Amino acid sequence: MSRIASEAAFLGLIDRHFPRRHAAVPLHRGDDAAVLELPGRVCLTADLFLEDAHFRRAYFSPGDIGYKALAVNISDLAAMGARPLGFALVLTTPADADMDFWDGVFTGMAGLADALDLPLVGGDLNRGPGVALAVTAWGGVGPAGRFLTRGKGRPGDIVFVVGELGLAAVGLHVLETSGRAARDSWPVATAAHLRPAVRVEAGLALAAVPGLRGAMDVSDGLAADLPRFLAPDTGADLRLDTAMLHPEVLAHAASHGLDPAALAFSGGEDYALLGAVAPEALPDLVRAVPSARPIGRVTAAPGVILNGRPVTGRGFDHFESSPCSS
Amino acid sequence: MSRIASEAAFLGLIDRHFPRRHAAVPLHRGDDAAVLELPGRVCLTADLFLEDAHFRRAYFSPGDIGYKALAVNISDLAAMGARPLGFALVLTTPADADMDFWDGVFTGMAGLADALDLPLVGGDLNRGPGVALAVTAWGGVGPAGRFLTRGKGRPGDIVFVVGELGLAAVGLHVLETSGRAARDSWPVATAAHLRPAVRVEAGLALAAVPGLRGAMDVSDGLAADLPRFLAPDTGADLRLDTAMLHPEVLAHAASHGLDPAALAFSGGEDYALLGAVAPEALPDLVRAVPSARPIGRVTAAPGVILNGRPVTGRGFDHFESSPCSS
Repeated sequence: MSRIASEAAFLGLIDRHFPRRHAAVPLHRGDDAAVLELPGRVCLTADLFLEDAHFRRAYFSPGDIGYKALAVNISDLAAMGARPLGFALVLTTPADADMDFWDGVFTGMAGLADALDLPLVGGDLNRGPGVALAVTAWGGVGPAGRFLTRGKGRPGDIVFVVGELGLAAVGLHVLETSGRAARDSWPVATAAHLRPAVRVEAGLALAAVPGLRGAMDVSDGLAADLPRFLAPDTGADLRLDTAMLHPEVLAHAASHGLDPAALAFSGGEDYALLGAVAPEALPDLVRAVPSARPIGRVTAAPGVILNGRPVTGRGFDHFESSPCSS
Repeated sequence: MSRIASEAAFLGLIDRHFPRRHAAVPLHRGDDAAVLELPGRVCLTADLFLEDAHFRRAYFSPGDIGYKALAVNISDLAAMGARPLGFALVLTTPADADMDFWDGVFTGMAGLADALDLPLVGGDLNRGPGVALAVTAWGGVGPAGRFLTRGKGRPGDIVFVVGELGLAAVGLHVLETSGRAARDSWPVATAAHLRPAVRVEAGLALAAVPGLRGAMDVSDGLAADLPRFLAPDTGADLRLDTAMLHPEVLAHAASHGLDPAALAFSGGEDYALLGAVAPEALPDLVRAVPSARPIGRVTAAPGVILNGRPVTGRGFDHFESSPCSS
C-alpha cells in the first residue's frame, strides 16, 4: 500500500500508463491545453463514473473501474457508428485510495485505450470525498462517412440489438447480493456488469449498411432507452423469446420467479447496441454484423408491445434511485 | 426552495439556460453523443471545480460557481491564444442543492458562455456527496493561425503579464476570514477570486504578435507557474514594484506585515496571462495588448530572481494542501 505522496507522483503514474505521444496529438498533456488534429466533424460525449452510484469498490477491482469508466463513453461513440479518437479524464481520489489502487485503475483503462489507440490528452485531478471519474471522449466517422443517430426508425423497420439483454442487470444483482464471489457462479453476467464489451467494430459496420436508419446504446435498459430511440409518434412491437436470452438470465429469472423477457426488457447497463433497419436491408445487416438479432418492428402507433402485451416504458432516473440499489 | 424532482426536470433547467442550437453543432445534446463541426486543429482542456477544494458555498454565490467553473477552462484556452468553441459539463449535486441553486449556477455559466457564443454540447449528472463541476472545453486558432505554448522563451526575452498578480489571493484570504461581507471592503480582490476575468481577446492578440514566444495562464501563482513556463535550463530575473500592484494587494500586505512583491509572486488563481516576447517585438506587444506589463527577463541561468534576490519557486500541490485553506 502506497500513499499518494504528491501531485507530481500521481502524474508520473498517469504518464507510465498513458504515453504522451500520438500521431494526431501535436501537443500532448502538460501545457494549458493539448493540441489535437481532428477530422472536421466529430462526435463527443461525456460520462460520469461515480462510486456508489455507478460502481462499488466492494466488488469492482481497480482495473474494472478504470475499464468501465472509459468503456461507457466508448459505447456512446460506438452507437454513433464512430471511430473513437481520444479522451480526457477528470478524477477525484479519497484519502483511502492509494497509488496501488490507481495503478490498477489506470491498468484497466489503458488496456482499453491501447486496444483502440486512444490518447489520453488531458484532464484534472483532486482529492475528493469518493472515487469519481469523468471521461470526455470523441470520435470521427468511419469509412461509411456518417454518424448514426436516434429517432430515425420508420414504421415497418426491423428493430435489432447487438449484444445481450438483461445480462448485466443479473450481474449487478448477484454482485450486490454476494459480492465478488458471485463471479464463480455467474461468470458471464458479472463480467457483463464489470467489463461491458465495447462494440466499436459493430458500430462502424452498422454505419456502412445503407438501409440502417439509426442506432443507440442501451445503457439504462430497453424499457427506458427504446422510447428515447423511437421517432415521435412511432412505437415498437417486440418479441423476446427465451431462446434469445443468455442462460444466466434464464437461470436468474427462474430462481427469482421473474419473467425472463421482462427482466431482459428492463435490465440496464448492457451497453448493447439498439438499431432500426429497413426490412429490405436486413440481409445486408446480417452480413455486416452477424451478431445483430432482430427483436421486432417499428410500428406507426405509439407505445411498446412486448411479447403481445403493451408495456409502460419508464426511464431510469438518476434523481429517483441509484442503479446500485436495484 | 425547490427540490430537484427528476432528471427530466433538471435537464429542462439546463435547456432553459443553454439552447440546443448552434451553427457549428449539427446534432446537439440528447443523442448518445453530440456532433460538432470543428477546425481540423483544436486545443482542449478539462478542469475540475470542486466544493471545498476550489470554492465554498459559504461565500460563492451560485452564479459565481457557474461562472468560475467555466472561466478556469476558458482561461486555459485564452492562454493558448485560442478562440473557445464549445464545452461539455459533468456535475454532481448533493441533497442540499436545489433547483434554485442550480438555476443560479447555470445563470452564471450561461452568461459567460453566451458572451463567447459557446454551445454546451453535452455532459452527465448525478447525485453526489458535494457540488462538483467538471468542464471540458475546446478552441481553435484565431486569425494568427497558431496556438501559444510554454517553454518557448529564450534568454533575453521580456517576461510580461496581462492581469493583476496577487489580487485573487487577497480575495481568497479575506473571503475565508470574513465571508461574503468581505466584498464591501475588498471589492476588487474578492471579485478577482469569485469571477476572474477571462482574457480571450488578449490571448488572440498575443498570438498575432510575431515575436511572441509563448504564453500560459497563472492559475497556481507565479512562483509555481513560472518554472512551468520557462524552457529547460533557463531562468528569470523579475522586478515587481509596488507601483505595479493593485492598491488592495498593497493594503492587505501592509495590514499583515507581508512583502507585497512576495504576496504577488506567490498568490494563486489570478488567471493572469504570463508570456515571453522577443525584446525587439515589445512595441508590437504593447500595441496589440496595451495592458501587457513587462516584469523581467528570461535568463540563461536557471532559477528565478525576484527584486534582486533568488527565490525558490514551489508549486501548489493538490495532494498536499487545499487552496481554500491558504
